[in-house]
Amino acid sequence: MSRFLGDRLKAIEAYVPGEQPRDRKYIKLNTNESPYGPPDNVVEAINSQEIYDLRLYGDPECRELKDALSRIYGIDRSKIFVSNGSDEVLNFSFMAYGHKGASFADITYGFYSVFAELYGIDTDIIPLKEDFSIDPSDYYGKNNLVVIANPNAPSGLFMPLSSVEEIVKSNPEGLVLIDEAYVDFGGESALSLVDDYENLLVVRTFSKSRSMAGARLGFAFGNAALISDLEKIKYSTNPYNVNRLTQRAGIAALENDKYFMDNCQRIINTRELVIKRLKALGFEATDSRTNFVFVTSERIEGSVYYKMLRERGILVRYFPGERTGAYNRITIGSEEEMNTFIRITEEIMEEVSA
Amino acid sequence: MSRFLGDRLKAIEAYVPGEQPRDRKYIKLNTNESPYGPPDNVVEAINSQEIYDLRLYGDPECRELKDALSRIYGIDRSKIFVSNGSDEVLNFSFMAYGHKGASFADITYGFYSVFAELYGIDTDIIPLKEDFSIDPSDYYGKNNLVVIANPNAPSGLFMPLSSVEEIVKSNPEGLVLIDEAYVDFGGESALSLVDDYENLLVVRTFSKSRSMAGARLGFAFGNAALISDLEKIKYSTNPYNVNRLTQRAGIAALENDKYFMDNCQRIINTRELVIKRLKALGFEATDSRTNFVFVTSERIEGSVYYKMLRERGILVRYFPGERTGAYNRITIGSEEEMNTFIRITEEIMEEVSA
Repeated sequence: MSRFLGDRLKAIEAYVPGEQPRDRKYIKLNTNESPYGPPDNVVEAINSQEIYDLRLYGDPECRELKDALSRIYGIDRSKIFVSNGSDEVLNFSFMAYGHKGASFADITYGFYSVFAELYGIDTDIIPLKEDFSIDPSDYYGKNNLVVIANPNAPSGLFMPLSSVEEIVKSNPEGLVLIDEAYVDFGGESALSLVDDYENLLVVRTFSKSRSMAGARLGFAFGNAALISDLEKIKYSTNPYNVNRLTQRAGIAALENDKYFMDNCQRIINTRELVIKRLKALGFEATDSRTNFVFVTSERIEGSVYYKMLRERGILVRYFPGERTGAYNRITIGSEEEMNTFIRITEEIMEEVSA
Repeated sequence: MSRFLGDRLKAIEAYVPGEQPRDRKYIKLNTNESPYGPPDNVVEAINSQEIYDLRLYGDPECRELKDALSRIYGIDRSKIFVSNGSDEVLNFSFMAYGHKGASFADITYGFYSVFAELYGIDTDIIPLKEDFSIDPSDYYGKNNLVVIANPNAPSGLFMPLSSVEEIVKSNPEGLVLIDEAYVDFGGESALSLVDDYENLLVVRTFSKSRSMAGARLGFAFGNAALISDLEKIKYSTNPYNVNRLTQRAGIAALENDKYFMDNCQRIINTRELVIKRLKALGFEATDSRTNFVFVTSERIEGSVYYKMLRERGILVRYFPGERTGAYNRITIGSEEEMNTFIRITEEIMEEVSA
């Protein structure tokens, strides 16, 4: 840190992304990436001409990409924002709407509190219930920036659309942001409410269900006035935020949307199998509607399980802390990866019982 | 704009990028892009495996890319920051170092004032001299965030390294940011001063001299403490800011750096020829050290010349305003494009003289 840095920034602690170690080859079940790459038509869309055209700026308005999103989601282009990953939509939203404070869960995406700190936003941190679920009424009448991941992470739990609507309704003077990074794995989207509520922003990403974490492509749905707020911040910080090749890849991906939705179903099937097999080994698991499971066992400490998996070549995510420390968050990989994961877990459980 | 937007953001006016019209095919000499695409090895680096790997997050630390920059520029990796375009480094720098105010020229990159407004930073706007040059002593002792584009835009003029050093020396309590977007076309880089001054940040981009405007790749040199400030903001806003394919393209480009530096020389040669031919037509031109020229003629209004070129299929950049309104900024394209541009300018000048 330099002595030139502003005082507020001096004080903040940055978000720590999931580890990407290079000491050996791991089965990576720690950052909720898809085990399935993008399909052939995405590979073909990034052709030599497109790469040659990198000499030119991309379309700052992302018109073609918005048109493709508009077709898939049946929503007008004026209600769509696209960004350099959904982290950027979240960042812009805290900047735009955080001035009256922000409300979010104590256990949720760790980045929300980082944004709040970055912009000096007062936070109202709302504890999840004992079972990690959200009590919708805890969010009624906040009328500041209400941020809810649905499904939530790392719990994997989802809230029904009716509860989301109650929260939106009860915060007429505040913006309600629903972060739907994992919705394609079994949640219920609030997209259908966007036309009815001027204070609802629904945030999505290509990183999970559309296998493009490395491309950085997020998007959001909201009424046209909200979208123009976000566009204003984009044009005031980084107008060409979404690079050319990512726009191309996104358009191609949306042309082959069935491929991704089929993969989601495959991941859901694997998830259910993994939960069943872990339960047979004495684990408890939340009712995940995401591409990860959140599990605990009385027979092994969360930190120990994490460490033993790591030593055996499997990376999962461990969140130290009073309420999360007994758990691990495990991304659903391919069938083969998860068979290995289960086999190794069996070995570990035998070892700790010995 | 929504009623939920914070008051300060309500008031700001966003940056307007150069137009990207779609009504017809233009010769684009308006956004300082390179006429030459990236070389074959960049095209080859973005292969099917890399595209398939988009399912994975990229390296948030950009280690390989930093190593490649370190080799080319002979500077330690700890003194290098990389970002989603140099606009992002500028954005982060205003956020990090603007709390004591910011000083920059009245006629320079239009985005500086947008960042200042975005973060509510007091500005000390310093007029360029009558000939558009910078008087270094105007920047002495500011001790806030001093931002200088060198070479400057749209003037194209550069300041010698000795003057930059005087400015850095005379602002020991302020950060001096030198924006070297155009330095490869004939400027003098302040990179050599980075080891000697803890208050100097040198900002660069792949958008101009390295033909990758559409990839979004900027970088910066500064002492390790400054770099860690910028990393902190990156990790607090968008840790995966530079996508996988852009990292790949950047690494490949640096492996073939001679290709780009040869192109710069070619563009410099074309620039000098264009200036000569425009002068023969009665234009005045600044002594540009960039990939554009900044020209005026008493025989034609800047706005008229802009409009007549546009009607004839050539886009250039016109900046209305008391001091810039007589001028046009014209990007140096390929030899062929510039021959067409000169031929059309000859026709225009005949027409306005008739």
